[in-house]
Amino acid sequence: MTGRRLNDLTAAETARRIAQGETTARAVVEACLEQVALREPAVLAFEHLDADGARRAADRLDASGRAASLPIAGACFGVKDIIDTADMPTGYGSPIHAGHRPSADAACVALSRKSGGIALGKTVTTEFANVHPGKTRNPHDPERTPGGSSSGSAAAVAARMLPLALGTQTTSSTIRPASFCGVVGFVPTYGTISVSGVRAAAGSLDRIGLFGRSVDDIALYADVVRGVAPGDAPSSQAFAPRIGFCGEFLADRMDPGTGEALARLARRVSTAGAVVSSVAVPQAFTQLTNEHRWISSFEFVRNLTYEIENHWDRISTTLREGRISHGLSCSPEQYAAAQRLATEARAHTDSLFGPHDVLIAASAAGEAPKGSATGDFAFCALWTVLGLPAISLPLMTGPSGLPIGAQLLARRGDKGRLLAAAAWMMTHGAG
Amino acid sequence: MTGRRLNDLTAAETARRIAQGETTARAVVEACLEQVALREPAVLAFEHLDADGARRAADRLDASGRAASLPIAGACFGVKDIIDTADMPTGYGSPIHAGHRPSADAACVALSRKSGGIALGKTVTTEFANVHPGKTRNPHDPERTPGGSSSGSAAAVAARMLPLALGTQTTSSTIRPASFCGVVGFVPTYGTISVSGVRAAAGSLDRIGLFGRSVDDIALYADVVRGVAPGDAPSSQAFAPRIGFCGEFLADRMDPGTGEALARLARRVSTAGAVVSSVAVPQAFTQLTNEHRWISSFEFVRNLTYEIENHWDRISTTLREGRISHGLSCSPEQYAAAQRLATEARAHTDSLFGPHDVLIAASAAGEAPKGSATGDFAFCALWTVLGLPAISLPLMTGPSGLPIGAQLLARRGDKGRLLAAAAWMMTHGAG
Repeated sequence: MTGRRLNDLTAAETARRIAQGETTARAVVEACLEQVALREPAVLAFEHLDADGARRAADRLDASGRAASLPIAGACFGVKDIIDTADMPTGYGSPIHAGHRPSADAACVALSRKSGGIALGKTVTTEFANVHPGKTRNPHDPERTPGGSSSGSAAAVAARMLPLALGTQTTSSTIRPASFCGVVGFVPTYGTISVSGVRAAAGSLDRIGLFGRSVDDIALYADVVRGVAPGDAPSSQAFAPRIGFCGEFLADRMDPGTGEALARLARRVSTAGAVVSSVAVPQAFTQLTNEHRWISSFEFVRNLTYEIENHWDRISTTLREGRISHGLSCSPEQYAAAQRLATEARAHTDSLFGPHDVLIAASAAGEAPKGSATGDFAFCALWTVLGLPAISLPLMTGPSGLPIGAQLLARRGDKGRLLAAAAWMMTHGAG
Repeated sequence: MTGRRLNDLTAAETARRIAQGETTARAVVEACLEQVALREPAVLAFEHLDADGARRAADRLDASGRAASLPIAGACFGVKDIIDTADMPTGYGSPIHAGHRPSADAACVALSRKSGGIALGKTVTTEFANVHPGKTRNPHDPERTPGGSSSGSAAAVAARMLPLALGTQTTSSTIRPASFCGVVGFVPTYGTISVSGVRAAAGSLDRIGLFGRSVDDIALYADVVRGVAPGDAPSSQAFAPRIGFCGEFLADRMDPGTGEALARLARRVSTAGAVVSSVAVPQAFTQLTNEHRWISSFEFVRNLTYEIENHWDRISTTLREGRISHGLSCSPEQYAAAQRLATEARAHTDSLFGPHDVLIAASAAGEAPKGSATGDFAFCALWTVLGLPAISLPLMTGPSGLPIGAQLLARRGDKGRLLAAAAWMMTHGAG
């Protein structure tokens, strides 16, 4: 055993130590709760902390004799508060639903628990996973946003209160907070991890997002929440990827220094053996950043009909004047046109990738901005419309010394290649 | 005013009469409740009837002065009990969730109410919208099944307890009960009506289904639950469709007489001016009936993880030994292969339709069978995998004088052509 504290371990290492009798799930939970006691007053990542429930689950696991066969045994995870839990309230980030108690766990929560994971609590989400911020602060600087909408999940993993967390992404709600908080954030190919039991924002775009502190943990957790037996760790594979470098994509929306940080990253991985070529994103794709907004707003406002009709005065002004107003302004024809363009672009994804295994682009405009606004959503909108698996890696640093993520993207269904490239990047791309 | 009772009216006619001051929403609700009192003891369509809630909603509507501007003002609708309602329990057809109270209406329910619809109650579903039957009987013969899984919705519309009902379809859960109960049942193109607030069975297949007693009502209601302004009624369009006749598809699973009834229907519409040609469904498509089962089982069993892990003894033997066992036997590779075949087939849908506007096939094997088993699911599995909009029309009669539906199918996104053809068929295809 090393001297590392148990809350610092990855989920895989946690399960390994418990399986070998070196520690217990209860000890892991206590270590995570100690870190919560230390960091939560400043970070405010939790909407609801279930310390006693986590202790009971740990004790049950320790007594079961089954821990050795469970892939994330004893690993604590956080659950974004738009994801249903049977034993904790689920408020969707809105006072309208405060204290609501679902009758079942969402599929991703139940599958996490089935594999030995221990739910430590519900993490803060923006209102209905849109942009009106919650209370969470950036763990690296309390004056800055953690990003959104999966604010608490990203911040809790970054603050080492737990190794894994569940989020969602309809625009950039996993990749952006992962970038701002300096952790690994992952969204799978659209449709491949069940969103059953997750409050919908826009069904044709919504995905589960995962947060962790290593690529291997993300790969492990992605298998767990898909409900399949975990495969080999990506870092066990030798792989110098062919990389398409989208350094100019949305350059006009980047903060000063982000483009240069990306270029330095490209030089580092090229030096380390990756084949890196510049890719200019064609206009048929860049226009999808706007089309994404029509699609998501049109669907979001309809999914919010109950609240709009019955609880208008408890919806934030931000949401009313932003997404709701935009959604109501979108005609069915505009929506249909956006969906048509999206479908056409998806059919031409191969032309965007060309010979490359993965693309690299910015995860966000730059460092987490000061204030509570959760940051520019645009850097994932295109990739989200295409439904591509994506991962944000904490490989860059901004002018204030804060993390900026590099976003890797692969073709639909190509998670294996994405994660292998990500593991290689984490080894060879660090600055 | 005619002498028809108010519960016999279509939703469109109900709204028209209320708008013109010929009746009130309250009178309509009372007429539907009288019919419920008459028929429900034999049909058992409701899991929960909310007579007082419906009366209050009707009174509010009558007092609001807004009825004239609402497309389904005063029309009562039923809600399949896997669809969330904030003011009525939602039990998913399972004792595990009996009495569960969601904190919001599903999008389709909220949109129905926003357009003036009045929820009369929750209708019986099979257990988790799978095959273990509920208590509902076929309105035409209490010894026969109404079909499933949207059993109560189809039966309530058929028994004239209400003009509209919400259901779902993951395999054939709308088209089959519509066929057995002799009403119009409709499923839209996959992804075009929000399933937010609906308990998931298999997310890559799940759709909202609609029940009504006329094609015009279905067209109206489809716009309402999409949250768009209603278009012109399909029956106002002159349209002699080009029909591909799939009379041989699954002929080996049809009851005696169903094939001949389909052939007679084809002759009637041909005589009336439609261009009818036989279409043989190629093997690349027919094999999807099996692939559908792998896809739906693999996803279903994962979405049921909470119940399997926590409430195994309250899951029916039917479900345990059927869908759950099948889902657990499906490897990730088998699932991936099924999804790959489905994706390929979707890309070749045009080759299946050729020059035809719509295809016609059987909605079910034949008349509703005796007993409680909800019937052969196979007759929709292919079309469901393809995500095609489909409608079942009560245009045929079996050897016992009971209804059999004709299933019309159109290309994805081609709802307008489907409903125009359906309206034409209802006029020219009756036996």
